[in-house]
Amino acid sequence: MSSPKSNKPKIVNGPGGYILQDVPHLIDYLPDLPTYPNPLQDNPAYSVVKQYFVDADDSVPEKIVVHKDGPRGIHFRRAGPRQKVYFESDEVHACIVTCGGLCPGLNTVIREVVSSLSYMYGVKRILGIDGGYRGFYAKNTIPLNSKVVNDIHKRGGTILGTSRGGHDTTKIVDSIQDRGINQVYIIGGDGTQRGASVIFEEIRRRGLKVAVVGIPKTIDNDIPVIDKSFGFDTAVEEAQRAINAAHVEAESNENGIGFVKLMGRYSGFIAMYATLASRDVDCCLIPESPFYLEGEGGLFEFVEKRLKENGHMVIVLAEGAGQELMSKSMESNTDASGNKLLKDVGLWLAQCIKDHFKKNKMVMNLKYIDPTYMIRAVPSNASDNVYCTLLAQSAVHGAMAGYTGYTSGLVHGRQTYIPFYRITEKQNNVVITDRMWARLLSSTNQPSFLGPKDVTEEKKEMPETPLLDGDGPVDIPPVTKEITK
Amino acid sequence: MSSPKSNKPKIVNGPGGYILQDVPHLIDYLPDLPTYPNPLQDNPAYSVVKQYFVDADDSVPEKIVVHKDGPRGIHFRRAGPRQKVYFESDEVHACIVTCGGLCPGLNTVIREVVSSLSYMYGVKRILGIDGGYRGFYAKNTIPLNSKVVNDIHKRGGTILGTSRGGHDTTKIVDSIQDRGINQVYIIGGDGTQRGASVIFEEIRRRGLKVAVVGIPKTIDNDIPVIDKSFGFDTAVEEAQRAINAAHVEAESNENGIGFVKLMGRYSGFIAMYATLASRDVDCCLIPESPFYLEGEGGLFEFVEKRLKENGHMVIVLAEGAGQELMSKSMESNTDASGNKLLKDVGLWLAQCIKDHFKKNKMVMNLKYIDPTYMIRAVPSNASDNVYCTLLAQSAVHGAMAGYTGYTSGLVHGRQTYIPFYRITEKQNNVVITDRMWARLLSSTNQPSFLGPKDVTEEKKEMPETPLLDGDGPVDIPPVTKEITK
Amino acid sequence: MSSPKSNKPKIVNGPGGYILQDVPHLIDYLPDLPTYPNPLQDNPAYSVVKQYFVDADDSVPEKIVVHKDGPRGIHFRRAGPRQKVYFESDEVHACIVTCGGLCPGLNTVIREVVSSLSYMYGVKRILGIDGGYRGFYAKNTIPLNSKVVNDIHKRGGTILGTSRGGHDTTKIVDSIQDRGINQVYIIGGDGTQRGASVIFEEIRRRGLKVAVVGIPKTIDNDIPVIDKSFGFDTAVEEAQRAINAAHVEAESNENGIGFVKLMGRYSGFIAMYATLASRDVDCCLIPESPFYLEGEGGLFEFVEKRLKENGHMVIVLAEGAGQELMSKSMESNTDASGNKLLKDVGLWLAQCIKDHFKKNKMVMNLKYIDPTYMIRAVPSNASDNVYCTLLAQSAVHGAMAGYTGYTSGLVHGRQTYIPFYRITEKQNNVVITDRMWARLLSSTNQPSFLGPKDVTEEKKEMPETPLLDGDGPVDIPPVTKEITK
Amino acid sequence: MSSPKSNKPKIVNGPGGYILQDVPHLIDYLPDLPTYPNPLQDNPAYSVVKQYFVDADDSVPEKIVVHKDGPRGIHFRRAGPRQKVYFESDEVHACIVTCGGLCPGLNTVIREVVSSLSYMYGVKRILGIDGGYRGFYAKNTIPLNSKVVNDIHKRGGTILGTSRGGHDTTKIVDSIQDRGINQVYIIGGDGTQRGASVIFEEIRRRGLKVAVVGIPKTIDNDIPVIDKSFGFDTAVEEAQRAINAAHVEAESNENGIGFVKLMGRYSGFIAMYATLASRDVDCCLIPESPFYLEGEGGLFEFVEKRLKENGHMVIVLAEGAGQELMSKSMESNTDASGNKLLKDVGLWLAQCIKDHFKKNKMVMNLKYIDPTYMIRAVPSNASDNVYCTLLAQSAVHGAMAGYTGYTSGLVHGRQTYIPFYRITEKQNNVVITDRMWARLLSSTNQPSFLGPKDVTEEKKEMPETPLLDGDGPVDIPPVTKEITK
Repeated sequence: MSSPKSNKPKIVNGPGGYILQDVPHLIDYLPDLPTYPNPLQDNPAYSVVKQYFVDADDSVPEKIVVHKDGPRGIHFRRAGPRQKVYFESDEVHACIVTCGGLCPGLNTVIREVVSSLSYMYGVKRILGIDGGYRGFYAKNTIPLNSKVVNDIHKRGGTILGTSRGGHDTTKIVDSIQDRGINQVYIIGGDGTQRGASVIFEEIRRRGLKVAVVGIPKTIDNDIPVIDKSFGFDTAVEEAQRAINAAHVEAESNENGIGFVKLMGRYSGFIAMYATLASRDVDCCLIPESPFYLEGEGGLFEFVEKRLKENGHMVIVLAEGAGQELMSKSMESNTDASGNKLLKDVGLWLAQCIKDHFKKNKMVMNLKYIDPTYMIRAVPSNASDNVYCTLLAQSAVHGAMAGYTGYTSGLVHGRQTYIPFYRITEKQNNVVITDRMWARLLSSTNQPSFLGPKDVTEEKKEMPETPLLDGDGPVDIPPVTKEITK
Repeated sequence: MSSPKSNKPKIVNGPGGYILQDVPHLIDYLPDLPTYPNPLQDNPAYSVVKQYFVDADDSVPEKIVVHKDGPRGIHFRRAGPRQKVYFESDEVHACIVTCGGLCPGLNTVIREVVSSLSYMYGVKRILGIDGGYRGFYAKNTIPLNSKVVNDIHKRGGTILGTSRGGHDTTKIVDSIQDRGINQVYIIGGDGTQRGASVIFEEIRRRGLKVAVVGIPKTIDNDIPVIDKSFGFDTAVEEAQRAINAAHVEAESNENGIGFVKLMGRYSGFIAMYATLASRDVDCCLIPESPFYLEGEGGLFEFVEKRLKENGHMVIVLAEGAGQELMSKSMESNTDASGNKLLKDVGLWLAQCIKDHFKKNKMVMNLKYIDPTYMIRAVPSNASDNVYCTLLAQSAVHGAMAGYTGYTSGLVHGRQTYIPFYRITEKQNNVVITDRMWARLLSSTNQPSFLGPKDVTEEKKEMPETPLLDGDGPVDIPPVTKEITK
Repeated sequence: MSSPKSNKPKIVNGPGGYILQDVPHLIDYLPDLPTYPNPLQDNPAYSVVKQYFVDADDSVPEKIVVHKDGPRGIHFRRAGPRQKVYFESDEVHACIVTCGGLCPGLNTVIREVVSSLSYMYGVKRILGIDGGYRGFYAKNTIPLNSKVVNDIHKRGGTILGTSRGGHDTTKIVDSIQDRGINQVYIIGGDGTQRGASVIFEEIRRRGLKVAVVGIPKTIDNDIPVIDKSFGFDTAVEEAQRAINAAHVEAESNENGIGFVKLMGRYSGFIAMYATLASRDVDCCLIPESPFYLEGEGGLFEFVEKRLKENGHMVIVLAEGAGQELMSKSMESNTDASGNKLLKDVGLWLAQCIKDHFKKNKMVMNLKYIDPTYMIRAVPSNASDNVYCTLLAQSAVHGAMAGYTGYTSGLVHGRQTYIPFYRITEKQNNVVITDRMWARLLSSTNQPSFLGPKDVTEEKKEMPETPLLDGDGPVDIPPVTKEITK
Repeated sequence: MSSPKSNKPKIVNGPGGYILQDVPHLIDYLPDLPTYPNPLQDNPAYSVVKQYFVDADDSVPEKIVVHKDGPRGIHFRRAGPRQKVYFESDEVHACIVTCGGLCPGLNTVIREVVSSLSYMYGVKRILGIDGGYRGFYAKNTIPLNSKVVNDIHKRGGTILGTSRGGHDTTKIVDSIQDRGINQVYIIGGDGTQRGASVIFEEIRRRGLKVAVVGIPKTIDNDIPVIDKSFGFDTAVEEAQRAINAAHVEAESNENGIGFVKLMGRYSGFIAMYATLASRDVDCCLIPESPFYLEGEGGLFEFVEKRLKENGHMVIVLAEGAGQELMSKSMESNTDASGNKLLKDVGLWLAQCIKDHFKKNKMVMNLKYIDPTYMIRAVPSNASDNVYCTLLAQSAVHGAMAGYTGYTSGLVHGRQTYIPFYRITEKQNNVVITDRMWARLLSSTNQPSFLGPKDVTEEKKEMPETPLLDGDGPVDIPPVTKEITK
């Protein structure tokens, strides 16, 4: 049963094992709010749509049932416009903020939140918060309208600016309250979404009629539950350019090694998909799959072997891989966002390989490429542009309909509203006992770098029915461990 | 119940309304075939995979259940490797043929069928059929191995060559039989898949141990059931280039009209997605949405209005749109593939607009761009490369496991085997009473060009629960009318 | 000797056959104009430059002397900043107009004229004329400053708008006079430069202190004297895309012909350079080289032969080629700019080839690509960006120094001021008796389509010492017939 | 007078100060060599060319005469086919070697040397030397023909492989002699050309009929005399991508600094042209222009100022800039090619800036991009493709005509043969007292980082008539100090 006015998860149980992990609603703590007819019903663009509004009990399953008699499982509330809205057009005062690192598509999401609010719901007052969370209290705001945002989707970055790091929830909510803002759109990664969750709780505590909406952003695709994160497709595409260059350098030099460091602090999705798409990579190293350097079955042995066979090779490394191998003596640190400050494993590993070959008096030419900032800064491609549009529209429909404390997310190709806790409770990782990673190993023909004992342990840690995982997702690449429970 | 040895569809009914539309198997008519252990189980790349093989009754639903108590509905057999295979590695003699127009990704599919056969299953004998179906009896074959195909995914087109049009089933099956081919991979559009179905029937009639596998190809994304067709994503991306140019031309000239003709004989998916991704388009015309030129609510009126407001506009036209408007006196014709030979509606409509403005003595500068062959010929992007890989691997797993008479296809992000009749029975179309089209109308702010009567009729023709449609498709763009039944 | 106050060419003769074809100066008809020190001498960016200002008698030879004792020949006045200027910063009121078809780099030239005026000379009043020559009297103007133009070089087209066609010199000069404009920058092709020349004459007649400066624009590179026109390099680059697509289509189809129509009404430079750069072209047809279709040595014979040998071919056609072959019955027409309205020879010739093969019952698949508007509309590449910068700066330096009635142009890698009559008196053409065209014939291995009699005649028409031609020009592609006199 | 049989420069003096710096010829030491008619005279592609062969005394001036009565100055022998050749087609046994770092266009040059030899001169025996100079004696050779090289210009890198470093002249000439090679094409930078010069001397000493031809390669454009080096144009184009990304990162972050390190060990041409083309750069640092960090007029002050004004900035650094600033304690080293082993000044300077801001407790976000290997590895663009074609053809014409000991090079848009000593005697550098650098300073609005004393000294070091410099070079960017003497 749902538990209004508390911060416990709202869970709805239905027949046959049906479970709905619902999102909060303004009426959970403001039960007497009036409603209004959705202005979309008079919009000529929508006049031809049959049964336009989403039904009360529409939901989308987290897991696709594959056995004849499997349980119905967990569902999420389906996103989309509702018959009734909880805001009048003139009443809405929205703001948008972008936090964390750059990701292709940020400007498209901003553009489409603004367009949806203004064209669909007639909203006139929209503010951009300058420079991330801190901008709520430390900076000026940027007035947004459809003219201002008209061309921004063709540019990389974020026109609002961004920042990492700590923020003062009280000050932010004070600022929201003082400015009379009643819809807050927060675009950012897991840390940012955790911040959004806390902001939502404070707003609920104060009893404000303010919808708090998260739009998950992570170029690494490490946010769970959702099919994939926006910008990921563009990032994989752009990474091809660096891999191609590495391949050319490797082929043109004696014992050439093209070494590409890609994004991926905790998950290796970009490295894995870029490798699968490219077909030029000989070795892909990701955080999820441990490896070692020396001795039999180690990386050095493999590099020597591949150079001997082919005369050149390409290595792709996700930035979070091999962390544990770096000198224990280096003191670990944390950056402003609370992420473990990762040392640059790329430069380190490249040097290790050079040293190994020098020590063994073998000729080798390693060319190191780190395209990180060149990838992050490109505009989103067509596929991500459409994706961002749908994400933004869903986000806006939900807020207008009074939902709050949710993130907008795609689940099995359907837009849904997902409670914050599902997005922030863990990270999405490449499952290395899954077929997708096996495909990669088969494609690169690299060793698994796992001893037999590791294999057994990896399998043990995995959930019981992993078959669902990894098989389909082409454009829905991330499949989380959680999904299979 | 399944019906072996006949060509009736194999249907499995389960509890709770579960229906499996199954695909044929060699043992349907060759019941005594021996089986062998799948060689993948000794493949080091797969050693770490937990429960690698697909279960006997795994299936994927065609429709995602969204109401608590909805029926279970139609399912397809899940694709993937099976514990037992019906071919020994040395026994396999495979061939690959590509038919119809070019589409980004053809070479990647060829590459990955070859790679899957040779690396996963140790197959040595693989032939490329030169120049489409006719090549079976009219041309030489091309020996394929992993070295030959190593770099082909970076090139557009098909290294095998292609052709349209009629083919002689008897001669093809004779050729298959004479050459001792026992796995036939057929990459092509709906006409080609109908051909594959007939070839399969003839092979079954002759009682040959030959697996016939289709891999659906259509740049227009007009094949039903599957999430999307390979190359579609690349095509939408590449179309942006033409739209951008049209936009620049339009903006730089007085009353400039940038007019872009895109692919889409019967379905307007490329035009719709390219428009949604671009955000620079003022009017998108597709075959599914009728329009008229003259008078109130007609195209001319809208063009005049938009030019008056903005001084320029961009029109995107799918090649199949407005066919009925072209002179009835022109005799319709059929091309070699049996498609209705479409007149070039782009040039015609551009002329109509010019004439209208000339007649009314209004200044107007129309620039006409037809990027069709420039789009078809590009190499596939990263996203399509990964997609093609999975499609090809699924196709090979199925044939090795003895399935036949199927196409490999993605359904809700899961690889499946789909019986031919489901792929060829109708076309996938844009559903204009669906929210995706409404989004487009909202984005372009164009009229629906439908009178009130049309709206009513369109709605009537639509299935009863269209809510599923159109919401999700970001990277799974096509949603068919059928899906909702 | 120079001839002030008249519109006769200013010619200076020096020792050893030195001839300077000089440009007009305001003091030719306003002899008492005061001068001011050039503000650049206080500009910190230029403080380190040694001997910054151009000397009085610096000139650049039109023809590079190659024989030990050759004559000195024709020279042009060297462009660049002068010690004295004839305008004070506050006095300047400049305007910029763009005319004719789009060309990559238009926005960069606009940007750099504005930047040069404001940063180098402290000019504050700069107007953009909207929509070409007509904009002087028919439209509003656009105020320009360095902020407005800051990003425009990254966009194709012209932010000022453009138009073709007739203009009323009196009204234009009235408008210049009424608005108090005293520097007029005119960016356009040969028709536009002829217009500029007339405007200059009228201004001289009225005795106005107004500098009239042309910046030659022609994507076809058909303006004589100058090394090359801006945007040409970008156009050749972008044309590769269409040729690649044509090549892929041709290779993938039985007897495939990829047919690309490129720009080039009267000169085939784009077609020639695109062919030389691509190396995938089998036949390049340009206006300068006549050809015929039927019979021995004709195009049809060559196409048949090449298809027989290779199974496919790529044809590149400049839009002005083969005009005389098109039906004489079609009445010739003129468009608004006075250009001979060319019929679309591309569609016509493609149809001829199709008909020929159909008549002879030979299989052939022709794919027609016309990338014209996609090429014109791209932003300029890095090389053209730098080029446009220098052109624009030279143009501004000249006007500030009181020169007028000139175009800014690059001659042998040196910026010069060229009198209008040299730019407009004839067109720059590919010289087919020159080595560059021979290189092309050698590269494509196509016949010259000339009979022995034609060869003799072509040679006869050519100037006597053609050796200079065609050897060097890589990035200075156009070499005119004139250059060799 | 020329000095046959010695290794002194061949100098020809003509009337009026005309000086020809001639190149060696086989008959200098093998005076009785027979000659043959040039087979090109029967080549149909060249049949239409009027006066195809280069005249005996054609030459190209190193410096363009600009004053009425200036001296005639230094000239180079004009490149191109000669009436008589010194090799029969069947006699030629050519080899090609590529040395040093990658550069766009290497494969195009290889392709066109092969094509020129085989199509123009009917040569059948052409060898590729594998992996640079060492490959002459340490590796196998690669047989080359026009089919093998057909598509290689579309790929980056070099199909022959390359290496740096020392080589054994005796072994190389032994290998040439043993294999019966009589034309040696050597593609590489200044170190490589010095090697070629030594190889030529040894061959002359041994009296071998072997032509030694250099084709200068340097992505940095630091080879003197020639207009520009191949690949430079492509490199500047590709660098835009990194600068754009840096700009996006800088704009999106609070006090964001986008920091791009580009190639340029000793000369800053790539950095300078990339900055001029981009217009997004705030500070460009090159080896030729010293700078300092601390205090008034230093880099830190400028960075603080620009961030304060604009909130972000982009810095471009050539890899050789600021070397002298790096810790003197670091021991300098030399790499295998004898280049001073440069420490990575990019990482060092980025860290200095970070430290400075940290020390002063100012917020700053620096994003470091090093696109070096991504730039080097791209295929050459259309402009460089045409350029490489002409270079390669000129190289081949010269060898066939018996010239030897020369490099093929473009001078003022004309192909010439330049004696080795002119290419290797010094490096081409950006002249910072030249107008081109002033243009850059004006464009970025950065300080010159020079004190008044430095200015005076810089000016003193410069040649006396620098006016020629810097004005023209758009596509002929490099202007050497030497040119102005």
